[in-house]
Amino acid sequence: MQSSQIGVGIVGYGYWGPNLVRNFANNASASVVGVSDLDPGKLAAIQRLYPGTTTTQRYDDLLSNPDIDAIAIATPVHSHYELALAALRAGKHVLVEKPLASSADLVRRLIDEADQRGLTLMVDHTFLYTPAVQKIRELMLRDELGEVYYYDSTRSSLGLFQSDVNVIWDLAVHDISIIQYILDEDPVAVSATGSCHVAGSPENMAHITLFFQSRCVAHVSVNWLSPIKVRQTFVGGSKKMIVYDDLEPTEKIKVYDKGITLNGSSENAHQFRIGYRAGDMWAPHISAKEALQSEVEHFIDCVRNGTPPVSDGLSGLRVIEVLEAASRSIADQGKPVLLKHPRGSVREPARATA
Amino acid sequence: MQSSQIGVGIVGYGYWGPNLVRNFANNASASVVGVSDLDPGKLAAIQRLYPGTTTTQRYDDLLSNPDIDAIAIATPVHSHYELALAALRAGKHVLVEKPLASSADLVRRLIDEADQRGLTLMVDHTFLYTPAVQKIRELMLRDELGEVYYYDSTRSSLGLFQSDVNVIWDLAVHDISIIQYILDEDPVAVSATGSCHVAGSPENMAHITLFFQSRCVAHVSVNWLSPIKVRQTFVGGSKKMIVYDDLEPTEKIKVYDKGITLNGSSENAHQFRIGYRAGDMWAPHISAKEALQSEVEHFIDCVRNGTPPVSDGLSGLRVIEVLEAASRSIADQGKPVLLKHPRGSVREPARATA
Amino acid sequence: MQSSQIGVGIVGYGYWGPNLVRNFANNASASVVGVSDLDPGKLAAIQRLYPGTTTTQRYDDLLSNPDIDAIAIATPVHSHYELALAALRAGKHVLVEKPLASSADLVRRLIDEADQRGLTLMVDHTFLYTPAVQKIRELMLRDELGEVYYYDSTRSSLGLFQSDVNVIWDLAVHDISIIQYILDEDPVAVSATGSCHVAGSPENMAHITLFFQSRCVAHVSVNWLSPIKVRQTFVGGSKKMIVYDDLEPTEKIKVYDKGITLNGSSENAHQFRIGYRAGDMWAPHISAKEALQSEVEHFIDCVRNGTPPVSDGLSGLRVIEVLEAASRSIADQGKPVLLKHPRGSVREPARATA
Amino acid sequence: MQSSQIGVGIVGYGYWGPNLVRNFANNASASVVGVSDLDPGKLAAIQRLYPGTTTTQRYDDLLSNPDIDAIAIATPVHSHYELALAALRAGKHVLVEKPLASSADLVRRLIDEADQRGLTLMVDHTFLYTPAVQKIRELMLRDELGEVYYYDSTRSSLGLFQSDVNVIWDLAVHDISIIQYILDEDPVAVSATGSCHVAGSPENMAHITLFFQSRCVAHVSVNWLSPIKVRQTFVGGSKKMIVYDDLEPTEKIKVYDKGITLNGSSENAHQFRIGYRAGDMWAPHISAKEALQSEVEHFIDCVRNGTPPVSDGLSGLRVIEVLEAASRSIADQGKPVLLKHPRGSVREPARATA
Repeated sequence: MQSSQIGVGIVGYGYWGPNLVRNFANNASASVVGVSDLDPGKLAAIQRLYPGTTTTQRYDDLLSNPDIDAIAIATPVHSHYELALAALRAGKHVLVEKPLASSADLVRRLIDEADQRGLTLMVDHTFLYTPAVQKIRELMLRDELGEVYYYDSTRSSLGLFQSDVNVIWDLAVHDISIIQYILDEDPVAVSATGSCHVAGSPENMAHITLFFQSRCVAHVSVNWLSPIKVRQTFVGGSKKMIVYDDLEPTEKIKVYDKGITLNGSSENAHQFRIGYRAGDMWAPHISAKEALQSEVEHFIDCVRNGTPPVSDGLSGLRVIEVLEAASRSIADQGKPVLLKHPRGSVREPARATA
Repeated sequence: MQSSQIGVGIVGYGYWGPNLVRNFANNASASVVGVSDLDPGKLAAIQRLYPGTTTTQRYDDLLSNPDIDAIAIATPVHSHYELALAALRAGKHVLVEKPLASSADLVRRLIDEADQRGLTLMVDHTFLYTPAVQKIRELMLRDELGEVYYYDSTRSSLGLFQSDVNVIWDLAVHDISIIQYILDEDPVAVSATGSCHVAGSPENMAHITLFFQSRCVAHVSVNWLSPIKVRQTFVGGSKKMIVYDDLEPTEKIKVYDKGITLNGSSENAHQFRIGYRAGDMWAPHISAKEALQSEVEHFIDCVRNGTPPVSDGLSGLRVIEVLEAASRSIADQGKPVLLKHPRGSVREPARATA
Repeated sequence: MQSSQIGVGIVGYGYWGPNLVRNFANNASASVVGVSDLDPGKLAAIQRLYPGTTTTQRYDDLLSNPDIDAIAIATPVHSHYELALAALRAGKHVLVEKPLASSADLVRRLIDEADQRGLTLMVDHTFLYTPAVQKIRELMLRDELGEVYYYDSTRSSLGLFQSDVNVIWDLAVHDISIIQYILDEDPVAVSATGSCHVAGSPENMAHITLFFQSRCVAHVSVNWLSPIKVRQTFVGGSKKMIVYDDLEPTEKIKVYDKGITLNGSSENAHQFRIGYRAGDMWAPHISAKEALQSEVEHFIDCVRNGTPPVSDGLSGLRVIEVLEAASRSIADQGKPVLLKHPRGSVREPARATA
Repeated sequence: MQSSQIGVGIVGYGYWGPNLVRNFANNASASVVGVSDLDPGKLAAIQRLYPGTTTTQRYDDLLSNPDIDAIAIATPVHSHYELALAALRAGKHVLVEKPLASSADLVRRLIDEADQRGLTLMVDHTFLYTPAVQKIRELMLRDELGEVYYYDSTRSSLGLFQSDVNVIWDLAVHDISIIQYILDEDPVAVSATGSCHVAGSPENMAHITLFFQSRCVAHVSVNWLSPIKVRQTFVGGSKKMIVYDDLEPTEKIKVYDKGITLNGSSENAHQFRIGYRAGDMWAPHISAKEALQSEVEHFIDCVRNGTPPVSDGLSGLRVIEVLEAASRSIADQGKPVLLKHPRGSVREPARATA
């Protein structure tokens, strides 16, 4: 890349787009060359804040602009595939808001297109770049938790009903990507239930259980119709347990030195020898750095160096395979759906190398 | 009943027994005649605190004691059926710690035995007698919530691993009894997942979804292996929503005047006209009366007047039918299990009569 | 004012200045004509974000600019007087960050200057424009609380040590302005204690008691050296009591229907007949509007219509008289300092007119 | 002492008495021989719960009972002196509910009486025996906090209005005793303000500042007229800071590795070189043992071994000297009152010996 700055075009200036524009604008290695949106009012707002940026209602103007090296897509889910494919075909690197596309098949086509052209394809799984999730991953890589027993998360609020996706594609997608990031293991089956309380709209409430070959189990509860906002995750291990509350202003992660101990088997089948450890709690200092700032830095690095992003296309694919399986299970009132992983182990197990 | 006081015998002086003894002892209409436990140490403790009470290692001593009108059973679940049956056959009224017995079949036999003998059979679903649950029921009977969309509860702690029952028979039983008490509707199907993290012990973590014929759905999450104690229930309605946190010292129930509004159908299939109401929150004053005190008063009233308890045998049966169905679903990784209600509608719908 | 927009100049682009620039820039009735700061790096940042705004290191450039109608001052306290005086003398309306100046004498001179020239002088007591404080004032004007017994506030954090003012001029100033705004009464005396834990720096921790002629008392606790941030205020009345926690994301104000009741005098001097009311709690919905947005709207209205602002010079003067009295009391380890109000009643008592 | 058990008599069975009776009854080294109260209804309640205990309306019956070695006094404050003096004169060891007596002079007489007779005189400063305060003292003895900058406590609720003492004798007494216990230093002056919102009753709200010769300062805020219960204490040190919330069920103490750092003096007098440390938070495991149980064990040990209690008469005297000084300061609206310590250093400085 000859230029010192990556030229970026952003399509979609609704809820998330402004955050992308602001973070690319604040990054010294990038330049926001153009923004595209169908709404002229939004384009006027961009002009006021970023007078040096070109605005347009036509996405093609971004694709044909030679100063644009990369496109960030923040439009409704159903449009992700076409917009991303067109960008790749125009030779642009692509960052797509989660979920990467509306089906695993479409994601696979995007991965192929990016691979063939040697372009970066990254999905905006923002939570992976939060200092809190980074800290949890760090604790798990250091084996602080011991064997991981469960991940149990609740993510709810009086949220915006999406029209083209249900609540698991909107909210559970965060947890699925976090689970995939911090655990060493892919789920083998999914059972999910969901319900819809507004006639004609997609499910607004769902519960998903992910089964693993180990004793680990993951559960995700999501709800657009909650009176209060909840963003709480429990991670239980044989040595320690974590409570991660993303709404806490500073002490987002609490590590509990608590658990059970097994004192040998008992002769009496009705009497387990289970003891309890109740030790200290510890809240590691968490950086206040905005996740999207780190993510934009990472995207720019990957574009420059041709290295695969943490949240690359394959990672986005694995998330969507789980979402699709969960959707099928919801349709069958919780009947489990098996997940196949023909591509083999997706990551070198951390424990094996430790 | 010729005597002014009900003579009570209590069997089992472990975790819950002392609470029963204390509440019967403090009730002016009852007299704790005898307590039975296998552990001589516990009997000695009773003697110190209640020198006027007879203690015995032999349950039969209670059964044969003519001064005992009623037996309260607080022993492990697997012993409930035999102890309750013996008490009924000895002509005693019976109060049994939850769950009523270890299977629906056994519960049906107890119900028959009590019916034939005209004795009171009551199950100790303590939460039904808490001022908080009473207040929720009152709000729902007054139709404050509108159509009920969901009941979603989490009940977890670093809890005592039970040896003869899994976590749903220990903890979810509370929620199932509350759901049955406050909703007008029985579930038609159950999907549940559960996992066990201690080899050879029963499930210590589970998630249960109850489906209803209406749009209502209930979900219960229970966990014996949580670093912190959680007792939180959300009830969402079309008009208002409740957050019930049993660990709050005073403001246990918060009623939110929040929700969504539908502004007519849209021409654009991708655009729902959903608006949001964000109004006040209100925490009604909740009495601090101990639930077990109210429950013991109710039991004594029922024994005296021959009236059926709120938590009678039939109510206990319906809870256990759900627990059994959930257990079957857990064994099949969430595959839904249908619930049959051959006895017809179990209660007159409150709304129909209002 | 012939122009449709008020031209605004801002001096000081440190902590608070960017908020002023942003809010004036977003207000359709105002135009940010110029910004002045001594730091070229900050001026460059402004240029990036607001390319249409003139930037300068020389304050005089703002004063001599005929397109600037009003100056907003966000510089260290010791410079407020000179900058504001120069602005008034240049015929500009003035909005000054709190506290208005470093002494009551200097404030009086600014008030005189503004009065003589018919210019608006307003102090940026931001909290008065928060929806939460507006709601408290509304509740008190409606006499929801009854007789006000006390205002008790804690405002602490691991805060920026100021070099030219102590913690009461930095933090307690907020509470003094709120107290003045919501109560109908001026304090008659002040007792304050303070301490300094860093040699050579001003007090970083202080406690202030304000006495009133009524039974009302106010207390303010401020601390720059607290491990956690606290922004909590209790207002106790004869009928109801308020807990206002500014860190709560939504339920910032809780109104408790609690208190004591007097059941007539007792014959026994040692036995008061005091009963307790423990009723419901109610959290009114609070708007999420940014306070500074409302404040900027109010300033523009006052400039346009020549009406006195809620936080006018006189209001700023009364706050500083209390701060000065508190500082004198701190020097004498709490010895009370009387406050004189030679200008008579500063406001028509709300209750008298009700 | 020839008998294996200490015979105990308790006078006063109101709010606190039942806790004393229960804890002495549960202690294997003690025997509750008799309880005295003026109210026959309360005596009947004791008889029901403790049939082996003598009850009487005449305090003299306890004094003349040779089986009683020690008297615990839980009556209104104004009666403490006479009851304790009579007990000492009858040769009984004495444990008195806080505060020890209604004036320092009376306390001195009790100390003399006990000294002359070689009897144990202990005041029931229960908080000193809580695992939380024990943990704070342990952390300070290990110099975990560094130089102690401040102790700042709030203790409020919708509390029982006392008729014979004001709120500082009822609530602040706890903090004064804790401060005395955990700090190495006695206060040299007190400034306090207080107010009364019920005509004819004692102060129901007060704020106390204690000055020390070091840079340490202590502040205590107490209030009987608060809508919610608060029991929160901040202890700030040069190395670490503690937040102690007694209402937290388990994590009562949080230790923050936060503070300021001084980076050398600046040339510019207006620019302090103060940096901030924001590190981890740590909540040490706190035992759940009831404080009064530990306290009763300690009292029995002291009686048996003739060793001085942690909360001996002298300790109770120092607390009351502060309460008296605070009361005088309240009468003068915060005017500071000096404290004299003619008895010299009251304790060997912990740091000197470390």
